[in-house]
Amino acid sequence: MNYLPPKGTRDFYPEDMILREHIFTSWEQSCHTFGFEKYDAPVFEHLDLYTHKSGTEIEQQLYSFEDKGGRKLSLRPEMTPSVARMVAARGNSLAKPVKWYSIPKLFRYEKMQKGRLREFFQLNMDIIGIAELTADAELIAATIDTMKRLGLDSQDFQIHISSRNLLEEYLQNTGIPKKEHAEIYLLLDKMPKMAYNDFCELVHSTLSNQERAETLLHLLSAKTLEDIEKMAPDLSALSELKELFSYLSAMGVADYCSFDITIVRGLAYYTGIVFEVFDTRRSMRAIAGGGRYNRLIELYGGTPTPAVGFAMGDVVLSDLLREKGALPTEPAKCDVFVISVTKDISAAMSITARLRNARISTEFPLKMNAVGKQLKKAAASRCKIALLTGGEEEASGNYRIKIMQTGEEENIPMEQFKEALSARLENL
Amino acid sequence: MNYLPPKGTRDFYPEDMILREHIFTSWEQSCHTFGFEKYDAPVFEHLDLYTHKSGTEIEQQLYSFEDKGGRKLSLRPEMTPSVARMVAARGNSLAKPVKWYSIPKLFRYEKMQKGRLREFFQLNMDIIGIAELTADAELIAATIDTMKRLGLDSQDFQIHISSRNLLEEYLQNTGIPKKEHAEIYLLLDKMPKMAYNDFCELVHSTLSNQERAETLLHLLSAKTLEDIEKMAPDLSALSELKELFSYLSAMGVADYCSFDITIVRGLAYYTGIVFEVFDTRRSMRAIAGGGRYNRLIELYGGTPTPAVGFAMGDVVLSDLLREKGALPTEPAKCDVFVISVTKDISAAMSITARLRNARISTEFPLKMNAVGKQLKKAAASRCKIALLTGGEEEASGNYRIKIMQTGEEENIPMEQFKEALSARLENL
Repeated sequence: MNYLPPKGTRDFYPEDMILREHIFTSWEQSCHTFGFEKYDAPVFEHLDLYTHKSGTEIEQQLYSFEDKGGRKLSLRPEMTPSVARMVAARGNSLAKPVKWYSIPKLFRYEKMQKGRLREFFQLNMDIIGIAELTADAELIAATIDTMKRLGLDSQDFQIHISSRNLLEEYLQNTGIPKKEHAEIYLLLDKMPKMAYNDFCELVHSTLSNQERAETLLHLLSAKTLEDIEKMAPDLSALSELKELFSYLSAMGVADYCSFDITIVRGLAYYTGIVFEVFDTRRSMRAIAGGGRYNRLIELYGGTPTPAVGFAMGDVVLSDLLREKGALPTEPAKCDVFVISVTKDISAAMSITARLRNARISTEFPLKMNAVGKQLKKAAASRCKIALLTGGEEEASGNYRIKIMQTGEEENIPMEQFKEALSARLENL
Repeated sequence: MNYLPPKGTRDFYPEDMILREHIFTSWEQSCHTFGFEKYDAPVFEHLDLYTHKSGTEIEQQLYSFEDKGGRKLSLRPEMTPSVARMVAARGNSLAKPVKWYSIPKLFRYEKMQKGRLREFFQLNMDIIGIAELTADAELIAATIDTMKRLGLDSQDFQIHISSRNLLEEYLQNTGIPKKEHAEIYLLLDKMPKMAYNDFCELVHSTLSNQERAETLLHLLSAKTLEDIEKMAPDLSALSELKELFSYLSAMGVADYCSFDITIVRGLAYYTGIVFEVFDTRRSMRAIAGGGRYNRLIELYGGTPTPAVGFAMGDVVLSDLLREKGALPTEPAKCDVFVISVTKDISAAMSITARLRNARISTEFPLKMNAVGKQLKKAAASRCKIALLTGGEEEASGNYRIKIMQTGEEENIPMEQFKEALSARLENL
């Protein structure tokens, strides 16, 4: 028998949940601050939902299977097809703009590497029904907000932004036929990972026409939008990018954003602005990525609907937080631990119940021991206050309490012990 | 192409999330109040984790499959094997008592019926390492607390409690051989669903010995622990149950609890107290169920460790809340919606960003329109306050705001607009 979790998956013991909940809470808070609503979809979908979008070769990366009724299903490798399906199903009855988010568990049968697991979480945010670049800016600002909430700033990460249209327009204008574009997108993806000379060689050896290779390399030397303007001032994608950056300035997040022509996003379905989030040193995989996908809802039988979305995984993000030491502290497990001096478990239970009814998180020793042992259990359970019942203070109408952090002890009136505890807990 | 969610699964549109989040939040709050810590495990496990506990016939109900590496896996049909595996793996290094909870999505390939889906959620709470009945009482009290938080009371539901030992002892004492016990457990499960006379006939036709059938029926006529005491005062399981009920009284939840000899819980792994939660009219399936499983950790290679746990699904519970009309109201989607009188989108974006940085949930019209249309969008986005930028009030240093619920309008100072909005939001 194999008692380990399956390869590529994780057990989350309570101590592992602290970072996970910290990330999820930050994500949820950002989504709420930006006015996004939560949705969810099944963990498995019909297999053709994925092959319809990405081709049958995607199946190699899927946890696909047949159910007992012969249905071809797959664990979800990404959330976008489910969103697109759900939006398409509602059609025009869904008020636009749709601003939705979800934190799904996703599954990909991939080679295990640093930053990559077979089961992982992803924050997904999408704005559907808005063709304007305001939506792209809104999403990029939301991406930044989620990272800032986790204690990361522009010294830690950057949003790399480009447009699929920019590249496409430029290539078309310089006479590079459309059928060669996909090959060029693949090349670009390799550029940040290679020495520049090696990359130049690769471009020359990949493109048939050497003049075109030089033209492409010329474009790729652009580091800013100003560089692009000098090379090709008439590209409509250039004004698109300029508009986007002006919005990002208005939103006060320009420091976090830079133009990066190498960003193309592998997937074929992106139609406009694309962006990826990297740690500043670029020592890790992309932390998040997204862009515009104006044709996807249609692909799933919906009416043509503009859309833009992004996804941020938990694995690389966790690595970055660990590296920076931006980890949350272990929270108290409960507020009050009730101890019985006389070992009267019913009395401890009754007081515990009254505190819990007042919504004060409380525990009692499930197994009765001497007071010293009970106090040790109270400490082990990481409570803030220990309350002693059955002590001699009760004769004068008091409970003895101990503030665990300081060791300080005092009496509180039995009559208003809930109020007295609440008041003390507020300051702990 | 099939654009529907797979059979037995659900899409959760934002309006469907309201009830789900309401339930989850109540669950989480109860767990926190009772001092339980959250854990999680993979969505799929090695298939033998389930067959090891429940036999190979369980596979018919599983979403089992082989991954690309030939591993035999299954989507999790329940959480207990994962908990047991995780606890067993840590052994004595895990401080006891373990008080853990989780809200997993689970998967069972079953016939679709009211209250039963193929993909559903379950609250799981377990106390591990405590042989005392205090742990059983603690868990039952926690079950009740989760229901009370959702607005349900003893008029709506009851906890039906029994002990597997009670039945086993009694059957053994009356000479019914152990190999017939399983058959009797199956019978008991049918008792509440049948007319009494039909049930008596079934007992007689099932048991070989008619005298034993009568003895069994005699026991099953017991409605209270007092009845049992009259029939068989010496059963050790009787004093166990009496102790449990005294704890439940100390915890102030006796009103919610009743002895019910028909509760056996189908699964073979229960070893002591068992309980199920039903709506008072018993018009629905069990809302929750649990009990003691002192031998399971051992089964997964751990040291012998006492344990007690329960699980509550979201499907029947949601039905009950709907039936009672105890549903949450739709929350506001955001606090503030920023409108631009001059249609200056950058100004609206900039103010939105400042409010968001102050952690005020804010939206702006992603698509600029006339003021009337923007106000309509503000209403559609269910915001609490609309703030107008670019109005003539700005000349005198003010923003105009509109309280959406009342239609009331007023000016607030531009200099301290965040503070002024926060103050008003506190009362909305």
